[in-house]
Amino acid sequence: MDDLWYSEYHSPNVRFSIKVSQQLHHEQSEYQNISIYESAEFGRFLTLDGVLMLTERDEFIYHEMIVHVAMAVNPAIRNVLVIGAGDGGVARELGRYQTIQKIEIAEIDQRVVELCQKFLPRTACGFNDPRVELHFADGLKYVRHTQNKYDLIIVDSTDPSGPGEVLFTKEFYGSCHSALSENGILINQHESPFYLTDAQAMQSAHRRILSVFPVCRIYQAHIPTYPSGHWLFGFASKGMNPIKDLNAEAWEALNIATHYYNTNLHRGAFCLPTYVEEMLKQDE
Amino acid sequence: MDDLWYSEYHSPNVRFSIKVSQQLHHEQSEYQNISIYESAEFGRFLTLDGVLMLTERDEFIYHEMIVHVAMAVNPAIRNVLVIGAGDGGVARELGRYQTIQKIEIAEIDQRVVELCQKFLPRTACGFNDPRVELHFADGLKYVRHTQNKYDLIIVDSTDPSGPGEVLFTKEFYGSCHSALSENGILINQHESPFYLTDAQAMQSAHRRILSVFPVCRIYQAHIPTYPSGHWLFGFASKGMNPIKDLNAEAWEALNIATHYYNTNLHRGAFCLPTYVEEMLKQDE
Repeated sequence: MDDLWYSEYHSPNVRFSIKVSQQLHHEQSEYQNISIYESAEFGRFLTLDGVLMLTERDEFIYHEMIVHVAMAVNPAIRNVLVIGAGDGGVARELGRYQTIQKIEIAEIDQRVVELCQKFLPRTACGFNDPRVELHFADGLKYVRHTQNKYDLIIVDSTDPSGPGEVLFTKEFYGSCHSALSENGILINQHESPFYLTDAQAMQSAHRRILSVFPVCRIYQAHIPTYPSGHWLFGFASKGMNPIKDLNAEAWEALNIATHYYNTNLHRGAFCLPTYVEEMLKQDE
Repeated sequence: MDDLWYSEYHSPNVRFSIKVSQQLHHEQSEYQNISIYESAEFGRFLTLDGVLMLTERDEFIYHEMIVHVAMAVNPAIRNVLVIGAGDGGVARELGRYQTIQKIEIAEIDQRVVELCQKFLPRTACGFNDPRVELHFADGLKYVRHTQNKYDLIIVDSTDPSGPGEVLFTKEFYGSCHSALSENGILINQHESPFYLTDAQAMQSAHRRILSVFPVCRIYQAHIPTYPSGHWLFGFASKGMNPIKDLNAEAWEALNIATHYYNTNLHRGAFCLPTYVEEMLKQDE
């Protein structure tokens, strides 16, 4: 077998490489470069514009953490909007709540969805849920001019360059605020505190969300295939608090089997290292 | 400048690479291969037998987490034994507690200490503390036949291959138990739950410590330059509990400025992902 390696630069001076058995697919869509690989260590994995989005082996961490934290805080969530998430993983985790009535997904790139349906069925199975309504649309345009409609908005974006860039603007966060109900929650992937470019994106997103939402708390997870392995999520709301309003008993009564998330970890995930707290405080 | 990269295989199929400006030193000591590099991203870094031990940029995470958790649980710690830790980082953090009377260090390889003193002064400064008593000795032999002497033993070992192997045996943990006082605490670097070899070492260490100590709790940290970025530590004792016995007020009154550790994070660090809990439970 050829000695074939996929590499991603986590910074100009740090490279993370995965041995691959083959490149299953590669194309330039209208919006971005899409590749899917097969590997012994991580199973199949998806890259967009050269950046690793998910691997079959560790995607459970990202998808559980971007969904279950909000659901355990507000079990009354009925209407959800998901932005991005063309792999279906967010929909799969949301689909485990019988109380959810509708899952609208606004993914800009139809080819991402089609390729994940072909090559990544473990996440794309999320699209099979009858409550899912899939729109191939720009997230900002989709959410703009909507009022008081969603109980939860999940922003499963790429990094703030390329098609994901508008999902890190103040205008976008303002539109999300308007589109959310009174108890609404906004969850976004919040980049990482460690390497410079990621840390700048984290601080910029935090500053902008704080200018729109009265509550904005950051939580963390260990995601081995993301830069530094230290990844953050944002929890923003008009008042709901991710710790005080955690309804651990109600969530546990649902008996949702998870591999990463649990209500104890939920509390722990908001306990940030001092250096991260200090970076965030610069913006408060 | 040459395009020079240091690489470590985190598994046979995963490679982590750092661009280096130069190799500052390289030698084969009596025990192991020692290298020190200079890099733009991480400053200087030390490798032993090809495995990255510490970088100037993120060593604070490892050293704060291996020291302050125990110190915040038992502020009455007076006598400390440190096994390994030839870079001086553990001694540096311990040195910040005026209540500590003696810090014995048993490091097997004198050359590691000498080279860190020459090239890594930011950690090796720890050896300058007058309470430090440095012994170039095998950790197992050093701790054997000692009774009720230490309030804290810190095992800052390499992976369980090469000179660090004996520090993962049941005999070693049993000797530590005997050497500890009634309120004594054993802290060890506990490998990682993610890649196979690390996870096996984690489970094996946990099983052996559990067979000797009544209390054995695991806590985690985000260490970007270690495999998967998800690193674990073990907290073992004859009775002290790392959460119930945490003396947060006393620790905060010490005004020790840290960059990673804080007492809120202390509690959060023991909240493990479900898959890690399950791996540990297999041994309980």
